Amino acid sequence: MSSETITTANPSTGVVTATALQKSTDEEVAAACAQAAQATAELAALGRPFRSALLRRMAAALDAEASEIVAIADQETALGSGRLEGELTRTTYQLRLLADVVDEGGYLEATVDHAAGTPMGPRPDLRRMLVPLGPVAVFGASNFPLAFSVPGGDTASALAAGCAVVVKAHSSHPLTSALCGRILREAADAHGAPAGTLSLIHGTEAGRTLVTDPRITAVAFTGGHTGAAALKAAIATRPVPIPFYGELGGVNPLVITPRAADERGTEIAHGLVDSFTLGGGQFCTKPGLVFVPEGHTGDELVSAVRSRTAASPIPALLNKGIAGSYHDSLGRLAPTTQLTLAQAESGEGFRAPPAVAVLDSEQFDPSQVDEVFGPVALLVRYHPETLNSVIEQLPGALVGTVHGATGDDPVRDSAASVLAARCGRVLFDGYPTGVAVTWAQQHGGPWPATDNQHTSVGPAGLRRFLRPLSWQNSPAHLLPPELREDTRTAPRRVDGLLQLPRP
Amino acid sequence: MSSETITTANPSTGVVTATALQKSTDEEVAAACAQAAQATAELAALGRPFRSALLRRMAAALDAEASEIVAIADQETALGSGRLEGELTRTTYQLRLLADVVDEGGYLEATVDHAAGTPMGPRPDLRRMLVPLGPVAVFGASNFPLAFSVPGGDTASALAAGCAVVVKAHSSHPLTSALCGRILREAADAHGAPAGTLSLIHGTEAGRTLVTDPRITAVAFTGGHTGAAALKAAIATRPVPIPFYGELGGVNPLVITPRAADERGTEIAHGLVDSFTLGGGQFCTKPGLVFVPEGHTGDELVSAVRSRTAASPIPALLNKGIAGSYHDSLGRLAPTTQLTLAQAESGEGFRAPPAVAVLDSEQFDPSQVDEVFGPVALLVRYHPETLNSVIEQLPGALVGTVHGATGDDPVRDSAASVLAARCGRVLFDGYPTGVAVTWAQQHGGPWPATDNQHTSVGPAGLRRFLRPLSWQNSPAHLLPPELREDTRTAPRRVDGLLQLPRP
Repeated sequence: MSSETITTANPSTGVVTATALQKSTDEEVAAACAQAAQATAELAALGRPFRSALLRRMAAALDAEASEIVAIADQETALGSGRLEGELTRTTYQLRLLADVVDEGGYLEATVDHAAGTPMGPRPDLRRMLVPLGPVAVFGASNFPLAFSVPGGDTASALAAGCAVVVKAHSSHPLTSALCGRILREAADAHGAPAGTLSLIHGTEAGRTLVTDPRITAVAFTGGHTGAAALKAAIATRPVPIPFYGELGGVNPLVITPRAADERGTEIAHGLVDSFTLGGGQFCTKPGLVFVPEGHTGDELVSAVRSRTAASPIPALLNKGIAGSYHDSLGRLAPTTQLTLAQAESGEGFRAPPAVAVLDSEQFDPSQVDEVFGPVALLVRYHPETLNSVIEQLPGALVGTVHGATGDDPVRDSAASVLAARCGRVLFDGYPTGVAVTWAQQHGGPWPATDNQHTSVGPAGLRRFLRPLSWQNSPAHLLPPELREDTRTAPRRVDGLLQLPRP
Repeated sequence: MSSETITTANPSTGVVTATALQKSTDEEVAAACAQAAQATAELAALGRPFRSALLRRMAAALDAEASEIVAIADQETALGSGRLEGELTRTTYQLRLLADVVDEGGYLEATVDHAAGTPMGPRPDLRRMLVPLGPVAVFGASNFPLAFSVPGGDTASALAAGCAVVVKAHSSHPLTSALCGRILREAADAHGAPAGTLSLIHGTEAGRTLVTDPRITAVAFTGGHTGAAALKAAIATRPVPIPFYGELGGVNPLVITPRAADERGTEIAHGLVDSFTLGGGQFCTKPGLVFVPEGHTGDELVSAVRSRTAASPIPALLNKGIAGSYHDSLGRLAPTTQLTLAQAESGEGFRAPPAVAVLDSEQFDPSQVDEVFGPVALLVRYHPETLNSVIEQLPGALVGTVHGATGDDPVRDSAASVLAARCGRVLFDGYPTGVAVTWAQQHGGPWPATDNQHTSVGPAGLRRFLRPLSWQNSPAHLLPPELREDTRTAPRRVDGLLQLPRP
C-alpha cells in the first residue's frame, strides 16, 4: 500500500482497509478545475430547464442505488441504515426542491428598468440579474456523508446556481464519496451535461491545491475550525480573493424557562437527551449548552437528564480523531463539572459514552464556551435575573432554542430576543437537530457559527454562488432570456414593481 | 495649530487652512460605536415607516441647505457648482428612493413556511427574513463629497437597512463632511431618531480604531487599494470577522469595434474624451483603457481623441496626493507610450493636464494594467482576431463598454460576452461615467474592482447590511410584523409561492 493510497476505517470495529482510490495529484486537480470552468460556461448556454432536469435526474439516480449507497455509508460512518436512508431522502428531496427553484427563477432577482426621465436626469435602459459565480470547490463533511458531502446541499446549490463543482471527498467516507460521485457523473453524462459538471478529488493536499486554483471562484466547507483555518490560510495566498462559505458549528444554546420546567420538565429532559445524543451527537445543530433554572423543578429536570444519559446506548463516532477529541473533552470536564456518563458496556471501534456535565451559574464562564463534537451537553443552572447577561456573552450560533410555558412567559420572550441577536435561527419548544429543507430555513449564523450572511440549507443558499450583473442599453439578442422584453420566465421587478411570471 | 487639528486644502489654490475640527480620540470613537449599537436596537423597534420618513426628512434637510453645502464642497474639491448641485440631487434622490424601498419591503425577502408534511417528514412552521446586521462604519470617498461620503450611498443604504452609521470623514473635505453631518443629525433629532443614528469621526487613526471596535458589524469603503489594504489589515486583527465592502475602482475597458469606428469614429472620440476627463477623470467608472481598431478609421479616431485632449481645460484635482500620483503616472507613460497632453496654461493649485497615451497591440501587456486616477486614458490598438484573448487577461472591473455598429456586429457581440465575465456592468454605445441610481443598477464587480458579490449603488445595496434570521414555531407576538399571519406589509413567499402585498 503506497502512501498515495486512500484508506477507509470502519468506526464500529476500528479496522482500517486500503481502497483502490488514490490521492489526487496536482495535475488531476488542475484538470478538474479546467473542466469545471469549461462546464460552467457551457451550462450557462444550456439554460435553466436543462439544469433543473439534470438535478431531477441526479435525484432519481441516487434513489435507484439507495440500498448500495446506504450499505457502504453505514460501513464507513456507523450512523445506521435508518438514519442514512433518511439522509438520502433529504438529499434527493433537496435536489428536486432546488430543481423547482431553478424553474421558478425568483432566485435570479431579475430586474428591468426601462429608459425614463428621473429627477437626476434621463435614465438608460438597465437590466440586472444574478449570474453564476464560476466553478465552486465543495468540501464534504464527516457527519453527513450524503447530505453535506458529494451529493449534498452545497453541491446541489452550486449546480442549481449554474456552477460546476469540484468536491473534495471527506477522508472518513471515501468509498461512499466515490460511489455517489460515480452515480452523479453517470447521471450527468446520460443527461448530456458537460464533462466537468461534477468532479471528485481525494486527499488533504489536493484540497489545499484546489482552493488556490485560479479557476475556483468560491469555497463551501462544512466542518471544524481547524480545517477551516487551514483552508482560509491557503485561500489568503491567492492574488484574487474568493468567498469562503464555512459552516463551522457551535454550541447552540438552549434555554428552559422556569415555567417550562414546571410544566413539562421530564418531557423536556428526555427530548433534550435524545437530541444531543442523536447521531452520536455529531450534528452542528446539537444543543451543546443548556440553561436550566435553579430551584426544585430545575433539579428534577437535571436528574431526569442524568438518568436518561446514563441509560443511553454507546455509539461509535465517525472516526478516530473525533472519538479521541471527545474523550479528551470528557477528561477536561470531569474535574470541573458534575459529569454523568452512559453506563453501558463499550464495544470495539471508535466508541464514546454519551455524557452530561452540570455547572452552577457562578462556575460558568460564557467566554470559555467551546463546541464538543459528540454526545455531550453542558447544563448550566441559572437565575432568571442574570440569564440574559450571560447569553449576551456567548459566541454566535447556528440556532438558539427556548422552551417556554404554554401561555405567557416573560423569561421566554426576553431570552428569545437576546438569542436572536446572536443566532441564525430561533426555535421554540423543540430541538435544533433536524434542519428542514425549505424556503424559510436559515442554517448559518453569526461568527463563529459561520463567517457570512448566508444559509447553507434551503433555496436561499444559491445566493452564495451567484453575482449580480447589469446590462445597460443592450441589444436584445445579447440579453439573457430572463431579461428580454418578450419573455416572462421568472418573477421580475419592472420599473420598480414586482411582477409574477405568467401562469 | 496642534497636531490634532484637522486642516482643509483648496485644490484651486493649494492653500491649506486650519479648521475648528479635531481628530477624534479613541474615546470618541468608542462612544460613537456604543451609541450606534444602542441606536440600531432602538431603530428596529421603531419600524419601517419611521425609518422611511427619517430618510425623506434627511433628504429635505439637505435640499434646504443646498447652496451652503455646494459652496463649501466646491471650496474643498474644486469640482464646480454645477457638478456638485447634480451630486446633491443624486444624493437626495437616492435617500427618497431608498425610503420607497423600505416602505415596499421586498428587500426583506420575507418568507413564511407553514407547518406541513413533506417527503422528509413533518416540517415545522418556519419564517425567515433579513434583519439589520448592526452598526456600520462608512468611509467617505474623496471624489464624491456628497454622493459617497457622509450623506451618500453607503450611509443611505445602511440607514435604510436599519443600521446606525459611524462615518469616517474623508480628509479632502472635512468641512463639507461636518456640515452634512450636522444637517443629517439635526434632521434625525427633529424626527425623534435615537442619538447614535449617525455619527461622524475625523482622522486616519480614528478610522483604524473604528473598524476594530467590537460593535461595528460591517465596513463600507470607497477608495483606492492602499487605503483598503490598511483597513483590511486592521479588520483582520478582530477576533470576530466582519465584511469589508470595498469599492476600489479599476480600468473599466472600453472597446470600439471596427464597424463603430467606421460609422461614427469622431463622435465616439469626442464622447470618450468628455467621459475620461469628466470631473477631472476622478471617477471609479472612468474608461481608463480603450481598445481602438487598427486601420484607417481607427487612426482617425485616435487623432480626434488626441486633438480633443490637447484642447481640454486643465482641472485642479481633489488633493495634493492625487495630483502627485497623477504626475508620477504621466512620467511613467511618457517614455513608453505616445503621450499627448492638454496644451492650456496650468494655473495654481493641484492642477493636472488631461492626457491620452497610445500603444500598439504588441506593446500592450494586459497583466500590467493599473488604474490611474485622473484625466488620462490609455488607447490600445487591436486586431479583431486577438481582441478577446487580450480582454480575457484583464483584471476585473466595475464596468465594461462596447461601442458597436447600429446593426449586426460580431466583434461587439463576442467582446460583450468576454467583458461580461469580468465586469459588474456591461454597457453598449455609451460611456460608463454616470451611474444611474435605480433598481437594476450594479456598481461592483470582480476583483480588484470590488471584493464582494454586491452593489454599492441602488436598492440591492441594502443586502450588504442585512443578515438572514429564521423563527421556528414562534409565538406570534415574538415575530416581526412582516412575518405575522394577519399582516401583509411586504411582498412574501408563502409556502413557496410569491405573494404581492395587498394594495
